[in-house]
Amino acid sequence: MAAPVTLAIDAMSGDHGHEVLVEGSLRALEDHPQLKLILVGDELALRRALRRHRNAPVEIQPATEVVAMDEPPSKALRNKKDSSMRVAVNLVKQGRAQAAVSAGNTGALMAIARFVLKTLPGIDRPAIISPLPAVGGATHVLDLGANAECTAEQLVQFAVMGSALVTALHGIERPRVALLNIGEEEIKGNETIKQAAAWLAESPLNYAGYIEGDGIFLHPVDVVVCDGFVGNVALKAGEGVAKLITHFMREEFGRNLSTRLVGLVARSVLRQLARRMDPRRYNGASLLGLQGTVIKSHGSADAVAFANAIAVAVSEVEKDVPARISRLLGASQFAQPAAAAQ
Amino acid sequence: MAAPVTLAIDAMSGDHGHEVLVEGSLRALEDHPQLKLILVGDELALRRALRRHRNAPVEIQPATEVVAMDEPPSKALRNKKDSSMRVAVNLVKQGRAQAAVSAGNTGALMAIARFVLKTLPGIDRPAIISPLPAVGGATHVLDLGANAECTAEQLVQFAVMGSALVTALHGIERPRVALLNIGEEEIKGNETIKQAAAWLAESPLNYAGYIEGDGIFLHPVDVVVCDGFVGNVALKAGEGVAKLITHFMREEFGRNLSTRLVGLVARSVLRQLARRMDPRRYNGASLLGLQGTVIKSHGSADAVAFANAIAVAVSEVEKDVPARISRLLGASQFAQPAAAAQ
Repeated sequence: MAAPVTLAIDAMSGDHGHEVLVEGSLRALEDHPQLKLILVGDELALRRALRRHRNAPVEIQPATEVVAMDEPPSKALRNKKDSSMRVAVNLVKQGRAQAAVSAGNTGALMAIARFVLKTLPGIDRPAIISPLPAVGGATHVLDLGANAECTAEQLVQFAVMGSALVTALHGIERPRVALLNIGEEEIKGNETIKQAAAWLAESPLNYAGYIEGDGIFLHPVDVVVCDGFVGNVALKAGEGVAKLITHFMREEFGRNLSTRLVGLVARSVLRQLARRMDPRRYNGASLLGLQGTVIKSHGSADAVAFANAIAVAVSEVEKDVPARISRLLGASQFAQPAAAAQ
Repeated sequence: MAAPVTLAIDAMSGDHGHEVLVEGSLRALEDHPQLKLILVGDELALRRALRRHRNAPVEIQPATEVVAMDEPPSKALRNKKDSSMRVAVNLVKQGRAQAAVSAGNTGALMAIARFVLKTLPGIDRPAIISPLPAVGGATHVLDLGANAECTAEQLVQFAVMGSALVTALHGIERPRVALLNIGEEEIKGNETIKQAAAWLAESPLNYAGYIEGDGIFLHPVDVVVCDGFVGNVALKAGEGVAKLITHFMREEFGRNLSTRLVGLVARSVLRQLARRMDPRRYNGASLLGLQGTVIKSHGSADAVAFANAIAVAVSEVEKDVPARISRLLGASQFAQPAAAAQ
């Protein structure tokens, strides 16, 4: 059996409330016998939600406040010191949990995690990374929205962080890393990207050059690096097209009696297709670059999706991703951009 | 019958060569009896391609050079004064054609069009706009890649240009305009976007606030404004997801004999679906903000797609889009950002 893993679960944040999060937590416990969870939040509510599961390896850590989904991160950081989110991250800092998982407000989680855990030496800002579905596998993209504007140094740090994560989780020795740009030619892009490209080309990373937005989903590389504004737009645009195509399919198969019959015949294939496109499978984004592991679940996650986010936390704890980032960042060849950043 | 329209066609640029472009041109002539085309390029080659169509309302304008698809725009502008692209745009400047259509190098076409035709008074830089498929219609997005970095003033100008185009082409009196951002809350985004939002809120445009990337395809607004880097990534990311889903569908329906049979039964529905997702239907992006009409076809356009790009040119000429942009921009309420730009 694998070594025990203890995670702190923010059991109050998210769109659906604590019942769904507790259900997802219990589901994750079934999948991972080495797992122990500390559920953070309203003690009474959590105790009630757990009343039929007295034997589950779960501990409750009380927290009296909840960060609202639309609360400004600075306010959440300053005023909600006993929020379920803050207490869950504190447990990581205190060493009582090896990682925290939250379905709450992304900006607040980032601000709290950064304040409590601090970034790794050599990392200016944490970034959000997630695997996105791609032909023949998945592409890890960062930053997906934590940093709207980035320097070239930060983009290089993101490339290091993404590479370390992919190596850790998927055993790919030298993951291919690309910079997201608006053309593959050398002359395209702004000065920040060109500078990052020059540094990456001289780094020990397996830098593959520029990639356009479609490349994220067509998978010529393992890691795609971009600023958080562009990454977030790419992610959301992709979700939009997936919804549009689902809408078109519903319309076409629902057009009349005959197409509805065809839809019935094709049901198992369409279901399999829907399963592959299911965004719940990709739930669980990592806040990388911190002295600790923090996983962000989609706010609208159901129990299945939330259990997937917990599974991501288990993997990252078992592979000790922060230590791997530090090691890769310590490679002497990165001295140049780090020095230039002074 | 509609008033005659004369277009200049760059008949040499693009991925597939002049035969496909001539075929697309002839197809457009069939669809638009009011249309007359001036095909620009290698005289012998074009004459040969047209030899079975002696009665088509087509004129050949010789040009001895072709701009390569990967040629740097500055080089194309400086060194290829007799390129098919340059000569086609010159014909618009000279008043011999009402618009130019090219499937060539986007950057070169933008540079040449801007140099030859100049921008409209009050417009700093032209932008690329195209309708993208959306639930219940299409969303016009600009800029799709002409300007990697934009000021708040330029974003406001794009909003004006997009509104004028949608009103002209679709008769929507006050199109809803949104700014693409990484969250819908007021506090999100960088300073440029916040400034543009403040100006748009006070403008005579029907400004609807921020929208996220998925909104492009879900269609709560008519026009989405963003800088060219972000717009291009959103466009390409969307194309990537559409290709990924097509790939998944092929895999699922091709999995075994039984799923292939299901695919056969569902063939007509799937074909109808493919027709709706067909990117050729959306071919023909407009270079807006110029003193003249220039339409950019996708480089890989086949004859059907190229004919669609020509159809876009016909509509914009008939609706006199540049004059409408000037009129809307002349509205006194825009004085503020224009003055601030000084």
